[in-house]
Amino acid sequence: MTGKDDQVADVSQLTIGVLGGTGPQGKGLATRWAQAGMKVVLGSRSSERAESAAAEIVDQLGTGNITGADNASCAGQADVVLIAVPYDGHGSLLESLREQLTGKIVIDCVNPLGFDKQGPYPLRVEAGSAAQEAENLLPDSRVTAAFHHVSAVHLADVSGSEVDTDVLVLGDDRDATDVVRELAGKVAGMRGIYAGRLRNAGQVEALTANLIAINRRYKAHAGVRVTDVEA
Amino acid sequence: MTGKDDQVADVSQLTIGVLGGTGPQGKGLATRWAQAGMKVVLGSRSSERAESAAAEIVDQLGTGNITGADNASCAGQADVVLIAVPYDGHGSLLESLREQLTGKIVIDCVNPLGFDKQGPYPLRVEAGSAAQEAENLLPDSRVTAAFHHVSAVHLADVSGSEVDTDVLVLGDDRDATDVVRELAGKVAGMRGIYAGRLRNAGQVEALTANLIAINRRYKAHAGVRVTDVEA
Repeated sequence: MTGKDDQVADVSQLTIGVLGGTGPQGKGLATRWAQAGMKVVLGSRSSERAESAAAEIVDQLGTGNITGADNASCAGQADVVLIAVPYDGHGSLLESLREQLTGKIVIDCVNPLGFDKQGPYPLRVEAGSAAQEAENLLPDSRVTAAFHHVSAVHLADVSGSEVDTDVLVLGDDRDATDVVRELAGKVAGMRGIYAGRLRNAGQVEALTANLIAINRRYKAHAGVRVTDVEA
Repeated sequence: MTGKDDQVADVSQLTIGVLGGTGPQGKGLATRWAQAGMKVVLGSRSSERAESAAAEIVDQLGTGNITGADNASCAGQADVVLIAVPYDGHGSLLESLREQLTGKIVIDCVNPLGFDKQGPYPLRVEAGSAAQEAENLLPDSRVTAAFHHVSAVHLADVSGSEVDTDVLVLGDDRDATDVVRELAGKVAGMRGIYAGRLRNAGQVEALTANLIAINRRYKAHAGVRVTDVEA
C-alpha cells in the first residue's frame, strides 16, 4: 500500500478513535479497522450508545478489539482520531476536545453539504473547508482530511467484496498523511492517495455532492479511483 | 458507452468547435475527436495559428476532418462548442460570442486555479464556478461542464494506449449532458458520467488542483474513475 519512494508508517499498534462512531460512516470505518485487527474506540455523546454499537460490531465480526466511550474519553484514549460527525456540530465538538486532541493526528471526513429539491450542494464554509476549520480550532493537533467518499453501504457489508475506492488524503504534515494513507490501506480494497495540502480539502469535501448525484442517477454507491498512480 | 436505461444520443454528425484549440487541452481533445472521425473546427484568436494547428493534427493522424478559424467563426460553424481557454480571458470571450453560441451546447472545461510556492489552489469564483459564470453570460446557450481532468499528455499520445479516465459531466439540461457524455465516449478509454447539476461544477473544476498535487507527488498524469457505476 506504500509507493516505492514512500516510507512505510507502521500503524498496526495505534489506537483509532472514531468520534461520531455510531453514525453509518464512522461505524462502518470502525468495523473495517476492527476487522483488520486494529484497536478501535467508538465515541458518541452517550457512552452507552457507543458501547452498544461496539458490542454490535463484535457480534457482527465474531471478534474485534473495539470498545465504546463518550467522545471526550474516546479522544483521550486514541492515538489517531477520526471526526465523523455531522457538519452541524463539528466546530463546537472540536473546540470542546482541544485538550484531548493535542499532539494527535486528527482525520476530518466531514462533508459540509446542503440538500434541497434539486439535490445536494456544497455549503460555503468560511474557513474554506471543514478540515481547515478543524485546523483553526485545533492548532496543536496534526489535522488531515480523508475518507469523505467511502460508501457507508459498502463499509457495512463486511462479508462482501473489497471496498472499491481510493481515499484522497490531504494535509500539510507529511508524516501524518502517511499514517492516514496506511490506515486507508488497512481496509481491503481501499488505497490511500496523497491528494494535496489542507487548503485543497474544500473541493474534496464538496465532491461528495457529485457522488450523491451519481448515486441517484445510476442507482450506485460510487467511489473514486485515481488512475495512472502507483501508491 | 450509454447505460442500459439511457437513450443514445447520436453525436457522429455534429461539428465540434474548440475555442482555445491551440492550447494543449483543447488541441488534445480536438485530436482525439478527429481521430474518432468527427468533424472538428479549432478556434483561436488568430485564424492562422488555428489553421496551422489543424494542419499539424492532420499530419499527426494522417487523416482528419479538422480545420482552423478565428474564435467567432469557429463558434458560428460548430454545433457543440468546447471552451478550453485560460480562465483569465474566459468571461470576456464568452460575452463576445453570445450571438454565435445561441442555442448551442457549450462545454466549459475551464479550471480557475491559482499557483504559488505551495502549488495549485482553487480561485474563488463569484458565480460559484467558471461553468456557472458561462451560464450567466450565455443565457440562450445550453451550458454544460466536462473534461476538466483529462490529461493533455495522454491526449497528445495518439499512438499510445487508451485515455484511462472517466469524464464528469455536469449540467441542468439532461439532453445536453447526454450529448456531452457521448462525446466523451468517442475517445478510446474515456467514459462520460453524469455528475450533477451545474451548481456542483465548482468542486469538479477545483479538483484539478488535487490532481496536479497528485501528479507532482507520484510523477503521474492522473485521471479519475468512478467505481460501482455502469454507464
